[in-house]
Amino acid sequence: MSKLFGAVEAGGTKFVCAIGVGPEDIHDIVRIDTTTPAETLGRTIAYFRQQHAHHSLDAIGIGSFGPLDPDATSPTFGFITSTPKPGWSNTDIVGTLRNALHVPIGFDTDVNAAAFGEHLWGAVAGLHTFVYLTLGTGIGGGGMVGGKLLHGLLHPEMGHILVPHDRTADPFGGVCPFHADCFEGLASGPALHKRWGAPAEALPSDHPAWTLEAQYIGSALVNFICTLSPQRIILGGGVMHQRSLFPLIRNQVRSLLHEYIRVPALGGGLEDFIVPPALGDRSGILGAIALAQLASTEASA
Amino acid sequence: MSKLFGAVEAGGTKFVCAIGVGPEDIHDIVRIDTTTPAETLGRTIAYFRQQHAHHSLDAIGIGSFGPLDPDATSPTFGFITSTPKPGWSNTDIVGTLRNALHVPIGFDTDVNAAAFGEHLWGAVAGLHTFVYLTLGTGIGGGGMVGGKLLHGLLHPEMGHILVPHDRTADPFGGVCPFHADCFEGLASGPALHKRWGAPAEALPSDHPAWTLEAQYIGSALVNFICTLSPQRIILGGGVMHQRSLFPLIRNQVRSLLHEYIRVPALGGGLEDFIVPPALGDRSGILGAIALAQLASTEASA
Repeated sequence: MSKLFGAVEAGGTKFVCAIGVGPEDIHDIVRIDTTTPAETLGRTIAYFRQQHAHHSLDAIGIGSFGPLDPDATSPTFGFITSTPKPGWSNTDIVGTLRNALHVPIGFDTDVNAAAFGEHLWGAVAGLHTFVYLTLGTGIGGGGMVGGKLLHGLLHPEMGHILVPHDRTADPFGGVCPFHADCFEGLASGPALHKRWGAPAEALPSDHPAWTLEAQYIGSALVNFICTLSPQRIILGGGVMHQRSLFPLIRNQVRSLLHEYIRVPALGGGLEDFIVPPALGDRSGILGAIALAQLASTEASA
Repeated sequence: MSKLFGAVEAGGTKFVCAIGVGPEDIHDIVRIDTTTPAETLGRTIAYFRQQHAHHSLDAIGIGSFGPLDPDATSPTFGFITSTPKPGWSNTDIVGTLRNALHVPIGFDTDVNAAAFGEHLWGAVAGLHTFVYLTLGTGIGGGGMVGGKLLHGLLHPEMGHILVPHDRTADPFGGVCPFHADCFEGLASGPALHKRWGAPAEALPSDHPAWTLEAQYIGSALVNFICTLSPQRIILGGGVMHQRSLFPLIRNQVRSLLHEYIRVPALGGGLEDFIVPPALGDRSGILGAIALAQLASTEASA
């Protein structure tokens, strides 16, 4: 009998909860507004209890906003740690759900969850080393190295790398409250909005915003390529809904690398190297199902 | 009976070959000038054949200059690939040694070898995710993520990431023939020499060169921290012989991170987070012994 999983895409404005098996088989999905931790987690638990009356769940996967503790050996594993989101600092998400629902719980960042979903069923199936980057309200990155999800001291914060910023060409100072003109400060949705006076979705594809945006994204990708040597890079999130960005970014990366790394994957037009997510808008919730599958496998190992 | 290993630290100017077990037990060590591939590898083979008459070697490890192919499943595994070094492009180092010596061969970049040695016996023992960076004639980086040496499409080229470069404060254009003012172009030994008109070792510890150098290294480390979330970073190589750089770099990293990543390891003075190699000048050859140990274990698995 095939396994059945619960999934939580835990975001700052909504928790999407679902029951399913994989991309071809999502039984049910609901949306819960993110309010206080007690109320939001209470409604999440109520949802799974109600579903559980009909279906026995093998595990639940949670892809969450952060910062969070993804280290299963840590005393604060499963906590959202020091988030600026009011009321949510030091929230024990995993413990709260496990105590109420008594199933194995998989837990990781939203971007690592999405990365793992794309690894099981999407744009990086069969690859062991890749980056998944989402560009929207913020910029976040996850991925795998050697078949393992990227963890370490904590988890990556790829949006906060530093990239060249020519203040003569672009005097905009950046919007990151911590680092001003880090990658996220220069290239997130709010940065686009503030610099150009209009939201990203209102900027036409021939607007100069996109050439500049591709320069910053291209610099960041060169840094990820030189640091991790990924086999492929997935770019998702609201900013990437502007599909004309993809060729601009590929040109920028090719130009910046300057044929330094001579491998076939980096030799051509990079169409198969820098790609959109295959799971589209479902990458978050499918990623959470993927984490549940991993937790179920580990629990029965 | 304990195992005995051969080791090759394959560099652009010399091949250091050794026989040993680990840091406490190096039986023999020789230096061979790097000339043509045929001559250099011929002398390397002759050395191990002569040693082999007295000691039976369980495996040989090679930490090499690159670019190279470290993927054991690739048809060009063990090759130096597209190096600018005359005569060495497409040199099958592993195949040549294995055909002559009939032992398992471990092979990786010089920096991944050194990283693995530090993992077994040095500054990152017990850690699963870390970066090893060497700053000298070039800048190279390696390390592990989740207990696996960093590979992917090829191997990292950490010296070639892009970092902020304020041309008003530092009009120097950089020395990298591929990327001009990438990290290596701005902060390698030759960059220091060309910018200040004197080699690094001739610049006193209070020279303004070191403040600027710490800014570039600090920016690069922030990028590695945000991308990989390392538990520790080792800084080695000739440039780091200027020990006053360590506190300058730690201050720079702390200032640039701006308390964004709140974990104990990044909370204090970073003395235990940004460290010199514990194996010192022997990290290269001990890293090659470490690769031999890994190859021996894998061969008998």
